[in-house]
Amino acid sequence: MLYPFDTLLNTVNRELEKLEMPNQPSGLYEPARYALTLGGKRIRPILTLMACNLFSSEIDKAIAPALGIEIFHNFTLLHDDVMDKAEIRRGKPTVHKVWTANHAILSGDAMQIIAYQLIGKSPADTLPEILSLFSKTALEICEGQQYDMDFEQRDDVTEAEYLEMIRLKTAVLLGCALKTGALVAGASATNCDLIYRFGEKIGLAFQLKDDLLDTFGNEAVFGKAIGGDIACNKKTFLWIHAMQKANDQQKAELQKWVSLKEFDRAEKVKAVKNIYGEIGVKEICEKKMDTYFGEAMDALSAMEVNVLQKSELTHLADQLMKREV
Amino acid sequence: MLYPFDTLLNTVNRELEKLEMPNQPSGLYEPARYALTLGGKRIRPILTLMACNLFSSEIDKAIAPALGIEIFHNFTLLHDDVMDKAEIRRGKPTVHKVWTANHAILSGDAMQIIAYQLIGKSPADTLPEILSLFSKTALEICEGQQYDMDFEQRDDVTEAEYLEMIRLKTAVLLGCALKTGALVAGASATNCDLIYRFGEKIGLAFQLKDDLLDTFGNEAVFGKAIGGDIACNKKTFLWIHAMQKANDQQKAELQKWVSLKEFDRAEKVKAVKNIYGEIGVKEICEKKMDTYFGEAMDALSAMEVNVLQKSELTHLADQLMKREV
Repeated sequence: MLYPFDTLLNTVNRELEKLEMPNQPSGLYEPARYALTLGGKRIRPILTLMACNLFSSEIDKAIAPALGIEIFHNFTLLHDDVMDKAEIRRGKPTVHKVWTANHAILSGDAMQIIAYQLIGKSPADTLPEILSLFSKTALEICEGQQYDMDFEQRDDVTEAEYLEMIRLKTAVLLGCALKTGALVAGASATNCDLIYRFGEKIGLAFQLKDDLLDTFGNEAVFGKAIGGDIACNKKTFLWIHAMQKANDQQKAELQKWVSLKEFDRAEKVKAVKNIYGEIGVKEICEKKMDTYFGEAMDALSAMEVNVLQKSELTHLADQLMKREV
Repeated sequence: MLYPFDTLLNTVNRELEKLEMPNQPSGLYEPARYALTLGGKRIRPILTLMACNLFSSEIDKAIAPALGIEIFHNFTLLHDDVMDKAEIRRGKPTVHKVWTANHAILSGDAMQIIAYQLIGKSPADTLPEILSLFSKTALEICEGQQYDMDFEQRDDVTEAEYLEMIRLKTAVLLGCALKTGALVAGASATNCDLIYRFGEKIGLAFQLKDDLLDTFGNEAVFGKAIGGDIACNKKTFLWIHAMQKANDQQKAELQKWVSLKEFDRAEKVKAVKNIYGEIGVKEICEKKMDTYFGEAMDALSAMEVNVLQKSELTHLADQLMKREV
């Protein structure tokens, strides 16, 4: 039987709520519980369940690792927010603002362990492979975050470096989430590789969509001020291409805005967006995104399961690409 | 065959050196490698190998989880140093002093994952139990660290609370290290429980010894200034008992020293040590330590292996209690 998206989302949210965490010491577990409520769309655990459901009707065995992946994801957000000194996440104050940086560090460490506890509940025959995939992915995410921080100090980040950074920081966890579900369901090695590839490519497209929304999103729908990446000089795909293709005058203006310590945010965002428009980086980014989306669909097509079973995944991928938030 | 201590230490150090970590991004892996060089006595992985060797001559299968436990231990020191703002560890600047707090946070996260990768290489038939024990222990260590930080803000910490804190922060990892080795060797459930208990009790005694050395150690041998706990108002076993048994005048003087924001370090250490001497807290602490040591030896005696095989463990426990560093 094929479970619809909403059923899976309800399952994930119900199981997350049921998750037992000790109460004491409250300074450790309250921040962890709070971090999980900042949770968002629960895309990763849903992907795990969907992937399992592609090959099996028994999705219960995939619930524990699905939750593990979601908790790991929330742990990375928690520690990233400490490192980036971010004050707001999804409209609410971050853990280190509500408590302290020490609370955020230590409760993040605990969340990582809880994630592993859940991964450890994968069916015993699949545990070594799932655990190994999860650890490999987790380490790649750390590498991605380190590159992201390194890039803040650099002006010569190339497109290839940027794409590799977002592959590590974002895309591999989607691949991991999907492959984990497939492994639990006992899918073939070929199908496991293809679904990983599907996730990785969707992840790359997903992150480029994020970059686009941050700069070109509809502010009313987006729910927060657009231009965050521009304001903080983030070396996104858009920025890298703008710098590559800018004429001398455009380049000088981009560099001026980056170097200014004090500026009017709206003015800076408008000016940089203007140059982006002149150069046409939005279209370049959309094209790259479409390429990744196409590669994802190719991987999905190559999988040896029938079209009906793939439909939920195709639909979700479509939604992620069309989203405005 | 029974492997002597030095052989095991050499094995651990050689395998740690052989451990392959990627080179890039260097901001992630260099701090991790550096943290491992601050390593110390490698007691935990040696305990894993010794415990395995109690029941089996094949200790090779225990090497990966032994290293995992050592790397996890070093990760906790790394993050603790960030949280405690400690500048020196074993005579060398801490990771967040050589790099930044962000490097220390992220490379610590990576070390935790690498620890799990090594735990994941435990023999497949023992993996679920070893993984579960390791995660339970790791979470308890986080709880211990949280209690330790909580206690800094409190003046009413009881002996029982303090002992539970050091059990979580220090003792359970020794129990885990030993039980992991026993599990790899296929020891009986009873023997696994007994060796865990041995480790836990030795760990409690070990931490009380630490407290004693910090205050009453021989400075020339100890390698650093004694009185660190006194200087920073740490609520140790000694302090808790001193406050409990102090007369009004002694209590007033102890409280005066705690409340002083500016003071001469040597003068404070001398004054507090004086009161400790009047009250006799050193002897109370030594007695408690001996009790734990005795309980550890009882657990070891109850184990169904011959005395010769236990001798290395008994000897190591003796050394840990007699140490001056």
